[in-house]
Amino acid sequence: MITKEILNAMFNARNVAVVGASANPDKTGYQVLKNIIDGGFRGRIFPINPKAEELLGYVCFAELSQVPEEIDLVVVIVPAKFVPDVMRQAAEKHAKGAVIISGGFREIGNIELEQEVMQIAHDNNIAVIGPNCQGINYTPNRLCATWPLLTSRGTMAIIAQSGTIGAAMAGWAEDDEIGFTGVVALGNKSGVGEIELLDYFADDPATKVIVLNIEGVADGRLFIETAKRALTKKPVVVLKPGRTARGAEAAASHTKSIAGSDQIFDAVCRQIGLIRAGGIAEFYDFAKVLGTLPKPSGNRLMVVTSSGGSGILAADMADDLGIRIEKPDADTVEQLRTVLPNQCVLSNPLDLTGDATAQRYQDALEVIVRTDLADAYLVIFGDPIEGAAEKMAQIRALTEKPILCAFLGGGEVQKREVPLLNKAGIPVFPTPERAVRAFGALLSKRN
Amino acid sequence: MITKEILNAMFNARNVAVVGASANPDKTGYQVLKNIIDGGFRGRIFPINPKAEELLGYVCFAELSQVPEEIDLVVVIVPAKFVPDVMRQAAEKHAKGAVIISGGFREIGNIELEQEVMQIAHDNNIAVIGPNCQGINYTPNRLCATWPLLTSRGTMAIIAQSGTIGAAMAGWAEDDEIGFTGVVALGNKSGVGEIELLDYFADDPATKVIVLNIEGVADGRLFIETAKRALTKKPVVVLKPGRTARGAEAAASHTKSIAGSDQIFDAVCRQIGLIRAGGIAEFYDFAKVLGTLPKPSGNRLMVVTSSGGSGILAADMADDLGIRIEKPDADTVEQLRTVLPNQCVLSNPLDLTGDATAQRYQDALEVIVRTDLADAYLVIFGDPIEGAAEKMAQIRALTEKPILCAFLGGGEVQKREVPLLNKAGIPVFPTPERAVRAFGALLSKRN
Repeated sequence: MITKEILNAMFNARNVAVVGASANPDKTGYQVLKNIIDGGFRGRIFPINPKAEELLGYVCFAELSQVPEEIDLVVVIVPAKFVPDVMRQAAEKHAKGAVIISGGFREIGNIELEQEVMQIAHDNNIAVIGPNCQGINYTPNRLCATWPLLTSRGTMAIIAQSGTIGAAMAGWAEDDEIGFTGVVALGNKSGVGEIELLDYFADDPATKVIVLNIEGVADGRLFIETAKRALTKKPVVVLKPGRTARGAEAAASHTKSIAGSDQIFDAVCRQIGLIRAGGIAEFYDFAKVLGTLPKPSGNRLMVVTSSGGSGILAADMADDLGIRIEKPDADTVEQLRTVLPNQCVLSNPLDLTGDATAQRYQDALEVIVRTDLADAYLVIFGDPIEGAAEKMAQIRALTEKPILCAFLGGGEVQKREVPLLNKAGIPVFPTPERAVRAFGALLSKRN
Repeated sequence: MITKEILNAMFNARNVAVVGASANPDKTGYQVLKNIIDGGFRGRIFPINPKAEELLGYVCFAELSQVPEEIDLVVVIVPAKFVPDVMRQAAEKHAKGAVIISGGFREIGNIELEQEVMQIAHDNNIAVIGPNCQGINYTPNRLCATWPLLTSRGTMAIIAQSGTIGAAMAGWAEDDEIGFTGVVALGNKSGVGEIELLDYFADDPATKVIVLNIEGVADGRLFIETAKRALTKKPVVVLKPGRTARGAEAAASHTKSIAGSDQIFDAVCRQIGLIRAGGIAEFYDFAKVLGTLPKPSGNRLMVVTSSGGSGILAADMADDLGIRIEKPDADTVEQLRTVLPNQCVLSNPLDLTGDATAQRYQDALEVIVRTDLADAYLVIFGDPIEGAAEKMAQIRALTEKPILCAFLGGGEVQKREVPLLNKAGIPVFPTPERAVRAFGALLSKRN
């Protein structure tokens, strides 16, 4: 029985052995060892390889069993046929977890070999991630036992059937400087699957939003129960590709999972409050907004921008989604008139026009956030607006309501300001449409 | 009458005067002068400002009329009330074009002042861009009379009602290292508008695709005729926000243009072959794909990937758009079997699995491109794939058919490889869905 304590010991491993560590930079066994080291893991690291005495500056052992202490986490990157033996040695070393990156099991028909591995794991209470997976990353423990090297600590826990989708999510989160708590690639998910991980991250205090990429669900009833329990703690975003006939067929060849009826899955999501993303960009945007902002008390959005054209794009998307864009009342217009130059369009979108500075945004928003005109604010920076993040942090302190941003056309200034805004708790999206769509996700029914 | 010769003389100006150039880095008059200089403009540059003797290393004149030679292009950034006088001096200097960045005209009700300016332009055959616009950028002449500083030369000509939308498009093109020929921000478009510019870029040999962001069309019949003529030369992508009731209202306050029926506009686009983008991300993706790739002879797409999950996302989007994803025949499967390891899924998507290298992609694609299985190829790189661009350039040489890429989850390797792929004529998209959607645009009816 894989308990939360075992998973906890695995994620917070005090030491890690890399079985199949390699000196060849083209090999996964090199990359994973290097990423654990470069990721700043503070526990002890034991490369295992019979042909080396030392790897990347660490003493190398020929066999796992030769390591002179108990091991919390074993990362396995040797050919499939050797994995049962590695698992037996892991059991000797009282391992809590095994991340089996090696492929060559059920996915190519080697069902018995996989069963043998899982039997050893089961008999010895070892939590198995995989086999045939892309590893795990857990930033609170600086443990990057996967690739590419990503280390940015944040609040998003990523459970991914697809290693690439997990890595893409974590990579975007790192680029945005919002980070993530963990990435777990499920692979064949013969041991630990989405059920155990949903449960684990629901209770993980560092995690504010769980993102879940699955292709199929083995036990629908258990999935619903677990998801419901997780949803009482924090929002859960789901990407389940295979929506269409052709997609479902591709999913069947990928993980042999039977997708089931997409309509039923969709209905379940809506009923219990799982927030479903239609594609991978939405998956990221929804996770970002839900990990950052509280649920607004209504669907009235006030758009403030220096770019009239961007404001129209936002208004179109809001209209598509039934989000209300209401005009400011006469009193607010009067107040805005006193602080803004006369070319500004005092409506919603509020158009500060092309020569707007960060100061003009601040002047307008100081008026706006003191009114009850809207339940949330979308601030679109068009063109280079120096100091946007600094001024927005001041506005952020004036209101409890969600503030979202879009930033575009800003060249080098944009590249500097966007991470600063994200870090100030104001999520930034690359287009007005994506920002409005993310606001829509914030409105989803949830507990 | 603004002829193509006049526009040509403006874009290819041999010298430029910046009226309202400033020493204050917070002012537009500083930024524009600096960007013209830093953009590498090779003609002579004359800052005009009565309070300075020298600006950014250039001799400054108090008045435009004091410049000791004729001027091809005058960039105007002084308060609106001074613009008529500047235009009279521009006429004295036989200016071919005036880019009037200054606001304070028709957009705030100063219709007579704008008429005065335009009358002078008309009487003296000066092509006016604006007023109230974000300037122009023309990379063949290294002329960045706008902001931010963007200089990457390519094949996309951007005509934008919104300066921010224009700058965003050019910025993305620069980041992707595909570049652009020109960006023209229309502003109040009292002189040169989309009609003249469509006509100009249709004949511009450096331009392979025209992208057009408009909010309204003054003369529908003339627009259709001009667009039809342009479409005989090259594809034209259109972003016309204001699709919805709320969006149309925002457009009306932005440019006072009457949007007209969106359904009618949409029908016209379909009829004459204008390719309409639904949002700004599509606007860029469509421009990118149409500026790079030929029209495929059919809608059969072969997907090759190392990421099963990404392949499913692509298959879903293909199914949504009616794009055919057909499985390889037995003969091709047999050939693939000889070059690929046995965990690969020999279907469509062709899943090379998580440990695929650039070499494995090449091995698979060398088989695939020699068959008649598909009309185009989508190659999705999941995770860091070193050398992707180099191998793909070799594949690119083996076939005339379009090849599109998506790259995700690749960390630093991805950041290096993506621009190399783009430069090799293989457009890369950030998600599988966007790549498939772009392929859909490639299939659009056009001349």
